[in-house]
Amino acid sequence: MIIRPQGSLQILSYQEASQLCDVSQSGLNELLRQCALAVLNTGSNEDNMLTLLNKYSDFDIKVSVKGRGVQLIIKNAPRHAFVDNELIIGLKEHLFAVIRDLLYARNDVLESGHFDITRSHGITNAIFHIARNAGLVKPNVLPNIVVCWGGHSISEDEYQYSKHLGYELGLRNIDICTGCGPGVMKAPMKGALLGHGKQRYQEGRYIGITEPGIIAAEAPNAFVTELCIMPDIEKRLEAFVRLGHGIVIFPGGAGTMEELLYLLSILLHPENRNIPLPVVLSGNEASRGYFDAIIDFISDTLGPEACELLEVIIDHPRDVATKMKTAMETVRQDRKASSDAYYFNWRLKLELDQQQPFIPTHESMHNLNLHKNQPIHHLASQLRKAFSGIVAGNVKADGIREIEKHGPFKIVGDPVIMKAMDRLLQKFVDQKRMKLDASDYNPCYTIEHPEDHL
Amino acid sequence: MIIRPQGSLQILSYQEASQLCDVSQSGLNELLRQCALAVLNTGSNEDNMLTLLNKYSDFDIKVSVKGRGVQLIIKNAPRHAFVDNELIIGLKEHLFAVIRDLLYARNDVLESGHFDITRSHGITNAIFHIARNAGLVKPNVLPNIVVCWGGHSISEDEYQYSKHLGYELGLRNIDICTGCGPGVMKAPMKGALLGHGKQRYQEGRYIGITEPGIIAAEAPNAFVTELCIMPDIEKRLEAFVRLGHGIVIFPGGAGTMEELLYLLSILLHPENRNIPLPVVLSGNEASRGYFDAIIDFISDTLGPEACELLEVIIDHPRDVATKMKTAMETVRQDRKASSDAYYFNWRLKLELDQQQPFIPTHESMHNLNLHKNQPIHHLASQLRKAFSGIVAGNVKADGIREIEKHGPFKIVGDPVIMKAMDRLLQKFVDQKRMKLDASDYNPCYTIEHPEDHL
Amino acid sequence: MIIRPQGSLQILSYQEASQLCDVSQSGLNELLRQCALAVLNTGSNEDNMLTLLNKYSDFDIKVSVKGRGVQLIIKNAPRHAFVDNELIIGLKEHLFAVIRDLLYARNDVLESGHFDITRSHGITNAIFHIARNAGLVKPNVLPNIVVCWGGHSISEDEYQYSKHLGYELGLRNIDICTGCGPGVMKAPMKGALLGHGKQRYQEGRYIGITEPGIIAAEAPNAFVTELCIMPDIEKRLEAFVRLGHGIVIFPGGAGTMEELLYLLSILLHPENRNIPLPVVLSGNEASRGYFDAIIDFISDTLGPEACELLEVIIDHPRDVATKMKTAMETVRQDRKASSDAYYFNWRLKLELDQQQPFIPTHESMHNLNLHKNQPIHHLASQLRKAFSGIVAGNVKADGIREIEKHGPFKIVGDPVIMKAMDRLLQKFVDQKRMKLDASDYNPCYTIEHPEDHL
Amino acid sequence: MIIRPQGSLQILSYQEASQLCDVSQSGLNELLRQCALAVLNTGSNEDNMLTLLNKYSDFDIKVSVKGRGVQLIIKNAPRHAFVDNELIIGLKEHLFAVIRDLLYARNDVLESGHFDITRSHGITNAIFHIARNAGLVKPNVLPNIVVCWGGHSISEDEYQYSKHLGYELGLRNIDICTGCGPGVMKAPMKGALLGHGKQRYQEGRYIGITEPGIIAAEAPNAFVTELCIMPDIEKRLEAFVRLGHGIVIFPGGAGTMEELLYLLSILLHPENRNIPLPVVLSGNEASRGYFDAIIDFISDTLGPEACELLEVIIDHPRDVATKMKTAMETVRQDRKASSDAYYFNWRLKLELDQQQPFIPTHESMHNLNLHKNQPIHHLASQLRKAFSGIVAGNVKADGIREIEKHGPFKIVGDPVIMKAMDRLLQKFVDQKRMKLDASDYNPCYTIEHPEDHL
Repeated sequence: MIIRPQGSLQILSYQEASQLCDVSQSGLNELLRQCALAVLNTGSNEDNMLTLLNKYSDFDIKVSVKGRGVQLIIKNAPRHAFVDNELIIGLKEHLFAVIRDLLYARNDVLESGHFDITRSHGITNAIFHIARNAGLVKPNVLPNIVVCWGGHSISEDEYQYSKHLGYELGLRNIDICTGCGPGVMKAPMKGALLGHGKQRYQEGRYIGITEPGIIAAEAPNAFVTELCIMPDIEKRLEAFVRLGHGIVIFPGGAGTMEELLYLLSILLHPENRNIPLPVVLSGNEASRGYFDAIIDFISDTLGPEACELLEVIIDHPRDVATKMKTAMETVRQDRKASSDAYYFNWRLKLELDQQQPFIPTHESMHNLNLHKNQPIHHLASQLRKAFSGIVAGNVKADGIREIEKHGPFKIVGDPVIMKAMDRLLQKFVDQKRMKLDASDYNPCYTIEHPEDHL
Repeated sequence: MIIRPQGSLQILSYQEASQLCDVSQSGLNELLRQCALAVLNTGSNEDNMLTLLNKYSDFDIKVSVKGRGVQLIIKNAPRHAFVDNELIIGLKEHLFAVIRDLLYARNDVLESGHFDITRSHGITNAIFHIARNAGLVKPNVLPNIVVCWGGHSISEDEYQYSKHLGYELGLRNIDICTGCGPGVMKAPMKGALLGHGKQRYQEGRYIGITEPGIIAAEAPNAFVTELCIMPDIEKRLEAFVRLGHGIVIFPGGAGTMEELLYLLSILLHPENRNIPLPVVLSGNEASRGYFDAIIDFISDTLGPEACELLEVIIDHPRDVATKMKTAMETVRQDRKASSDAYYFNWRLKLELDQQQPFIPTHESMHNLNLHKNQPIHHLASQLRKAFSGIVAGNVKADGIREIEKHGPFKIVGDPVIMKAMDRLLQKFVDQKRMKLDASDYNPCYTIEHPEDHL
Repeated sequence: MIIRPQGSLQILSYQEASQLCDVSQSGLNELLRQCALAVLNTGSNEDNMLTLLNKYSDFDIKVSVKGRGVQLIIKNAPRHAFVDNELIIGLKEHLFAVIRDLLYARNDVLESGHFDITRSHGITNAIFHIARNAGLVKPNVLPNIVVCWGGHSISEDEYQYSKHLGYELGLRNIDICTGCGPGVMKAPMKGALLGHGKQRYQEGRYIGITEPGIIAAEAPNAFVTELCIMPDIEKRLEAFVRLGHGIVIFPGGAGTMEELLYLLSILLHPENRNIPLPVVLSGNEASRGYFDAIIDFISDTLGPEACELLEVIIDHPRDVATKMKTAMETVRQDRKASSDAYYFNWRLKLELDQQQPFIPTHESMHNLNLHKNQPIHHLASQLRKAFSGIVAGNVKADGIREIEKHGPFKIVGDPVIMKAMDRLLQKFVDQKRMKLDASDYNPCYTIEHPEDHL
Repeated sequence: MIIRPQGSLQILSYQEASQLCDVSQSGLNELLRQCALAVLNTGSNEDNMLTLLNKYSDFDIKVSVKGRGVQLIIKNAPRHAFVDNELIIGLKEHLFAVIRDLLYARNDVLESGHFDITRSHGITNAIFHIARNAGLVKPNVLPNIVVCWGGHSISEDEYQYSKHLGYELGLRNIDICTGCGPGVMKAPMKGALLGHGKQRYQEGRYIGITEPGIIAAEAPNAFVTELCIMPDIEKRLEAFVRLGHGIVIFPGGAGTMEELLYLLSILLHPENRNIPLPVVLSGNEASRGYFDAIIDFISDTLGPEACELLEVIIDHPRDVATKMKTAMETVRQDRKASSDAYYFNWRLKLELDQQQPFIPTHESMHNLNLHKNQPIHHLASQLRKAFSGIVAGNVKADGIREIEKHGPFKIVGDPVIMKAMDRLLQKFVDQKRMKLDASDYNPCYTIEHPEDHL
């Protein structure tokens, strides 16, 4: 199967083609192979990279610049990526986006010595360059990107609701940015496509931002027209908040909780207080309990200041869309007043601690500072790491291995915070939101209340 | 509410604006008002013009060329046509399409003395001119328009099925043409939009062809990007078969039967035998009985020659789409070999009898020649008129009035044909396909078997 | 030689193709043949229809709709219309523009009974419809069309000057409209094309408006991208003043004088006094005498009120362009304030007398009212007719025949006016501007001063 | 004066803006300042960087990313770059092209450690990357780029001739690539723009390739739509032969001779013998002597094999254009047969010696191997260096200084070659082609014939 690029797709040099075919440690072939397979596997229901790689163990991809322009030689790819033996154009674009971003991140960012990755501003610049190279950064466009966060595996009702909300956003010519997998990452795009169609909005953008570690679990759905692969999760999260002009959070699990806390750790930073970044939590009637639990938790731990930043709207997709539309204008005026770019939120202050990867181990989890004796944006950041560890312990390979070896993570901290966390996690367990296979959830953590020691 | 055109929309002259505001008999205001109201009412569940006009009795539309270009002044329009007080762009385009076609049909076709409407070729030319003026006729495009026929009011399952089939057509870059209302006229368009999106097919066409008498019952759905209002039903049907390159027939009722017989009366014409126009009847598993009944009826009345022209494919949307895609190439080669245009099937032979309106009365219905002593394409045409009368007796204002005054239509003919008709109509009654409100269907016809008179 | 349309070119019906091939009196073939030949002969130096037709007496054009879309079959066309045996695309477009306008004017305007040609407003509406059908009328475009008038046969210096002025207009993103032949009608377009190129102005418009009687003498130059053939000279002149937003008059002869007086007869109309339509007369240093003579004449006959409407700028192309650019904004604000369209000057008041053809005979020339006992806009109109007659007597077939038969036209009137006219015409004779072959100009008129009779 | 980018122009990061404002040795500000000034000075008659810098010593450019996107703050720029106080868009694009290429060459090519500049393939890859980043490399476009070489300072007749040839190329939809200054570099572009306009060829490309050392002397003319700044002359020359599909050489001086010998050193390489790269030398009648002298020289030194590669066509621009058009198809078939890209001539074999800069000193000039005891492509390369030295001695700052210090270069070699060189250079002197100010040319070289030493 030979795939040729079309339209404005990437033209490669011999050197780049060699890198992509290089199966050695320093080559990119294995990374390309994994990402390409994930891209081609879109629409299937697997969310496990290992299963996927085993199933298509003979999948192979080579890049050649002999021939008129570059061509990809693909063997044993998933059948559902093809229509009448032709690769779906959307997926073809995704393949070339993967190639573009892997090469750029490797050659021009990580190994060029051009960015100082040990400093906050260097990391932000690297993210900007990758996004710009991917075409995400457009001049002369008014703010209208709404980032949608939420679970990739949700109920049919929740799917329909987020699709409906996407439709209402689309009717207002708002563009969608998500983590680009299925579930909440697909539904709003599908809805927006229909809304954009009715409004004859030809420039509709469906932006998907992912990273190599998660792309297999959340293969970009075919509606994504602008795909960008960031090098790691922290850069992906930062890309969301700097590229988006508003955020809607749909129901999810511990992962969504991690994202929400990440967002709060930014919004609560004193230097960010006057930068508008509207946030709405929304879902259908059935998700009311979920959001109540979250707000209770935020209230108990971070207090009213944090709660004020969040608005929950249940079962009123039109209201959410109207609110976001109005907020876009607020954002525009703020950017204009501060002479800031519309396409990248340079002013948002992040601390290096938020930008560098948190690797959850028993030690790092135990050492989290979960007390109130600190600025609340620091506490939010610590809480985010706690949830990051729980996600890892639940579903990520490294995390699961840690738990198997040393038992559950031990989380310690202020009693009020510990109790709140206990309550929230118990609700997630009850609502079967901790894992896909929720039948017999065995917690990967123990929460130690100080009084336990009395 | 002032509406200004945008993009390539119609620029009017003072004279045309006057015609559109003229409320006298010879003016166009009342016709415009009805069509405009129908367009703005899309998405609602009413399918009755009278109800609609009563509900929005104070709806008013004026046209002005004072102001930068033309503007429409609209009062008391349905609220659901608007998003945040702005008319949905798709509906705006529909409004201006209505204006364009009403003016053109009146000034340049019907009253210009330029077309000889009493001859077959003159009528075909008039249809071509209206379609061309509406932008439906495009040069240098390969054949890829599939016409979808079927009921406007169908079950949720049938809706999902026809949407799925539209999606498969869309994945193959096929364009959709329908009667442009809800139900089967909307679902394939919605599906195709999603399929086109995945294939990045920017030129996707969603053509709706309607006429003033039906537009209220089948308001153009907002996905229609090319709307054309033909002067009457016969011209609308002819436009379908000359503009389309293939036809898919979904489940419907007596109306769909009328369309199928119209199509057969053309395809069975000896001069049309070698002109490829692929036809597939398709639906989900639940519609199998419906299609069986139809094929039985065609077999009993028109015989195997007619049946050979029809293919029924149940529950395999992908197969239908692949078959249509392949057929597009057959059509292309035929057009090329015969040096015929891709965009208009000039060669298809229609007889004046098929092009002139059939007005169902007790007399005209009784006088139909429903015997086998004639060429089968003539018999098909006669049968089509019989079903046309039944549709009118069921749902059209004039028809219902006739039935109330004089009792059911009396249909007479060859016993084999009469029995077949009886069986088919009984099945439609049983399957509740005769009317929307099917609770107590009271037939508008009696079928007289010759032996009744023995 | 078979020509197929491309892009958005006209798709014809069988009926239209028949009209175009019809060589009978009522058919359009002869008119098409003449116009097509003129279009294909662009770039040559002939400006005489008879010579042209004789030279290409075996030139033939047929239209066929058999074949994929319409095609033209052309025989024995001028070679210089082709590059490597392919018709230059610009000329191809002109050919199809001719077809479009001949058909539309015939079928939809002149013979449709839809316009009342006996009334001023009816004529204006007809012009609007022809222009609209030709695509000249564009919504949502700010005023920026400058009409350039002047001689088709000018000196190299004057050519370079008007090209330079066109370049300066082009640098300011101003579009050009001319009578579409060579000389002053070509130079500003060529200049503007270069200016637009430097400004990357992709939407540059190069509008040519002509009519069947003059198209052979002034074949549309290939830079014209929007060609429109009006039915006669009066409609062509009206189209200029209603479509243009400003007018530049370059040096010419009696014909240019006719145009200037036509313009003054409109601008001096009391109802038009507050409608901005900027006019500049411009040329290089060598043309100063020409413009001085004109201004003297206007001053003597129509007085200071008329002179105030005209501004002469010698040898400062940049100033002219800047002035026009500024004036475009004035026009825009006026249109906006009066809610008038940007694309058509509906408000300009013309009298039926100005819109109906003036046919110069000895009687009509003698009967002109060339006295000061009338409103000056009426006098301007009468003067315009006098010059129209002189042009006809100089160069038009009918006019020359009249003069040969009956001797020079006798023009009578107020002594002041007669003297001014005498002086001006003598200057034209001296400057060799009366005819192309100016060696031995024999005046086609005698100006009778009242004192002659004493 | 604040300049904002428009369209798809470059969006910069904070880091890049800092580099561009950095006036230290390692910063880019001085290089940017020089190139920007050259770009803005287009159209003036200076071709001396020092004069230019002195004249605009207070010219200043700063880059800021504060504000909506990037903006340039420019002070004291040449007035003729502006129209009514607005920078001409074409020049604006050039400014941003300069920024794009300076940054890319610095950060991603020269300092990234990603390319091995010490090897032939590494250099070729670097050139490809710079060209690709500049958008010069387009997929899915058939071969149609003709490179035009020749002098930047030519006579009016030669200017008109090369403009005419450009027009004929434009009529055949051929794109133009030049060194992007005035003279021969401007005329064919201007002509092609007019030809493209007549053919309605919207995608016309006007590619200019330059380098920082020459940009001041040959400021990109405003017709250039794709400007690319290569790091040095050798890379610029290689870019021409790899991006172009055919080459036309117009009259010039010693510099043009250097280009021709560079080209021959490639075409004569045994591995390049079967790669079609059509070359035509063309000029008006007056340039016949010039071309005769060149062919005589090539014949005497490199022999018939070299002459066969060159075709001289005098005063027949249409023939040159037709020949190039035909050759484009030959190139296409060759690329297709060899599966090579259309957009970059990867196969052309260059030797490192040709790719690395030649620095002319008395020693290097004296050491040139100008004997016939070597493959002719090597001899061609040596001869090219000799002319390179003469150009430097004539006009380049470093070269002139060398000559002033140590007297003329001494060139030694085979007597036949030396005599031929003597004759050719004498003709250049006679034809006043050695320097702009040719009044009293004092040769910067002495040619030592072996017999001199007898």
